[in-house]
Amino acid sequence: MHRPPTIALTMGDPCGIGPEVILRALGHARLRRRACFLVFGSRAVMRAVARRFGLDDSFLRETVPPGILQGGDTFLVDVAPLPARLAASGKPTAAGGRAAVNCIREAVEAVRLGAAAALVTAPINKTALTLAGERWPGHTELLGHLCSAQPVMMLVGGGLRVALVTTHCAVRDLPRLITKTRVLSTISIVAGELRQSFGIAAGRIAVCGLNPHAGEAGRFGHEEERAITPAIDAARRQGIACIGPLPADVVFYHMLQGRYDAVVAMYHDQANIAVKTLDFTRGVNVTLGLPLVRTSPDHGTAYDIAPLGRADERSLMAAIELALAIAARRGLCQARLHTQRRAR
Amino acid sequence: MHRPPTIALTMGDPCGIGPEVILRALGHARLRRRACFLVFGSRAVMRAVARRFGLDDSFLRETVPPGILQGGDTFLVDVAPLPARLAASGKPTAAGGRAAVNCIREAVEAVRLGAAAALVTAPINKTALTLAGERWPGHTELLGHLCSAQPVMMLVGGGLRVALVTTHCAVRDLPRLITKTRVLSTISIVAGELRQSFGIAAGRIAVCGLNPHAGEAGRFGHEEERAITPAIDAARRQGIACIGPLPADVVFYHMLQGRYDAVVAMYHDQANIAVKTLDFTRGVNVTLGLPLVRTSPDHGTAYDIAPLGRADERSLMAAIELALAIAARRGLCQARLHTQRRAR
Repeated sequence: MHRPPTIALTMGDPCGIGPEVILRALGHARLRRRACFLVFGSRAVMRAVARRFGLDDSFLRETVPPGILQGGDTFLVDVAPLPARLAASGKPTAAGGRAAVNCIREAVEAVRLGAAAALVTAPINKTALTLAGERWPGHTELLGHLCSAQPVMMLVGGGLRVALVTTHCAVRDLPRLITKTRVLSTISIVAGELRQSFGIAAGRIAVCGLNPHAGEAGRFGHEEERAITPAIDAARRQGIACIGPLPADVVFYHMLQGRYDAVVAMYHDQANIAVKTLDFTRGVNVTLGLPLVRTSPDHGTAYDIAPLGRADERSLMAAIELALAIAARRGLCQARLHTQRRAR
Repeated sequence: MHRPPTIALTMGDPCGIGPEVILRALGHARLRRRACFLVFGSRAVMRAVARRFGLDDSFLRETVPPGILQGGDTFLVDVAPLPARLAASGKPTAAGGRAAVNCIREAVEAVRLGAAAALVTAPINKTALTLAGERWPGHTELLGHLCSAQPVMMLVGGGLRVALVTTHCAVRDLPRLITKTRVLSTISIVAGELRQSFGIAAGRIAVCGLNPHAGEAGRFGHEEERAITPAIDAARRQGIACIGPLPADVVFYHMLQGRYDAVVAMYHDQANIAVKTLDFTRGVNVTLGLPLVRTSPDHGTAYDIAPLGRADERSLMAAIELALAIAARRGLCQARLHTQRRAR
C-alpha cells in the first residue's frame, strides 16, 4: 500500500513570517494531502498568528496519535512554550531565537529517528540567535554541527541549481576563503548529490571564477589560477564532469540553455543575484552534504512585513515540494515507513 | 523637414565578430532606414567578411557624397588599411588592436565635429590592445581619455538599467576601490543622465551594498558604513532620490517591479550577472558622463566563434536603437544637422 512520506517542518523565528507562511502553505489542501506534516513549533504562537491574520489552522492537530499516519495528517508538536505576544511581532528576541533553535534540534532528532523523511525549515534570524547566546550564523552551519557534516548551500530556482563555496562572509575575506580544498569539496558534494538527490547520474557542473571574466588569464586577480583551476583539475581526475573557471555573468545563461546541471558559485551574491533576479518568489535553499534531506524557503524572517499578515507562502511550498522529490528519489519515503513500523 | 540622425559605427577588432554583426545588423533594411550610418573600419576586412559568410554588403557605399545625407544612407569610412586575411581570423593581433583604436579615434572626432549624433562601437579586445601597445583596458577608459571626462559604465537590458562604480578589477581590490568619492560621483552622473538621456526627471536610484545582505549592519564587512552610506547621504543632500545600501540579490527584482529607475552596482559581476542572466542576447552597454552619446553591444570579440559566421547581431541592433533614442532625447539629431549644414 502506498503511504505518503512525513515532513518535519520547523516554525522558525516566532517574531518573523515563519508561522504565517506555514499556515498559508499547509492551508492548500492539495499540498497537505501529498504528505504527513509534523510542525515543530509553539502552540500559542501558531494560534495567535492564525487568529490575527484570519488564517485556517483547523487542520493542525495537537496530539500525534499512535499508529500509522495518513496523507494530510498535520500535527503541531509543541516544543517551544512561548507567550502569544511574540507572534509575528516583527523584532528579534532572545526567547524567539532560543525557541527557533529548539524547534530545529527536535525536528532533526525526529528525522534521524526515522519519524520524518525530510526537514523543511522556516526562516530564523541571526540577531535573534545572537541575543539567545547561539553562535550559529544560520541553519546551514547549525545543521552541519548537529549532523557532524560539512554542509554545502545550494539554491534552486528560476531553472537554476547553484551551490556556494562560501556563504555569509565579507567580500574582503573572499580571496582568503577561496581555497583549492573548499572548491574541490564543494564540487564533490554537488556531484554526489546530483546523483543521489536529483537523479542525474553524470551531472555536468560549471564552476564560476571569482573575478570578472574569471580573471581573464590573471589580468583581474589570481584566485582562479591559485585555487579554482587546481580544484577543477583534481575533480576531473576523480571522474567528475566539471568545467571552469567560467565568467559568472555567462554561466547562468548557459545553464538556462541546458548546458549544465549545476553551477558552483564562489560567493553569496554571485549565486543569489542569478536565482533571485530570475525567480524571487519561488527560490529554495537546499543543504547538501548532510545525512538528512533539508530544504527551506530562500527568504528571511522579513520582520518588516511580519506584523502585516501579507507574507508569500510560495517559496515555502516550493521547498516542501523539493524536499518531497528528493526524499522520494533517495528512497527515504519507503525506508522511513519501515522504520516507523519497526519502531511501533 | 524631418531628417534622420547619423550614427558613427566602429568596426571593432577585425579578427572578432565586430565586422560580421555590423553587416548583419545593417542588413535589416528597417533598422538601416531609421538613420544614416558612417561605419569607421577597413574596406578589405568588411568585404572579406561579407564574402566569407555570404552576407549582403551592397548597401555599404564607399564614398560619402557632398550634401545632406538621407535615411538609409550607409557609408564605409576606410580608416584602417588592413590585409583581408585578418578578417574574423579569431585571434588577437597587434595590427587588429591598432586598427580598432584608430577607428574609435576617427569616429569620436566625427561625432565631436557634428558629423554624427551618436557613437556605437563594436567590440575590441584587451589582449589585442596590449599587443598594439595601447594601455586602455577597454572602450570606457579610452573614451574617458579622448573626451577628458570621468566615464560611468551602464548596462541596459532585461528591464534593468545598472551603472557600475568599478569595472574591470579583481575582487581582492574592491574594498580599496569602493570610496565615498567614487560612489557619490557615480550616483550624481546616473541622476544627471536619467534626466538628460532617459527623460526621467527625478529618477529613483537604488544603490547596492558590496557585501552579502549589504553587510547586515557590519556583520559581513564595513564598506557600506565607511563609503556607501556616506555617499548616499551626500547625494540625498544634493536632492538626488537615492536609497541604499540595499542587498544586491533583492534590488534587481525590485527594479523589475518598477520601484527604481536605475541601480548603482559596486562591481562588474554584480551588474552583469543580473542583466545577462535576464537577457543575454540584447544587453547594451552605455557610457555615461561623456560629452557624446555612446553605446555598444554587451558582448566581446568572441574570437572562438568569429571564424564560424554564426554571431548574433541583436545586441548591436539594441545598442543602435538605444543610441538613437538617447540622441533624440538629448536633442542631438536636430542640433547636429544644423552643425552639418554650417560645416558645408
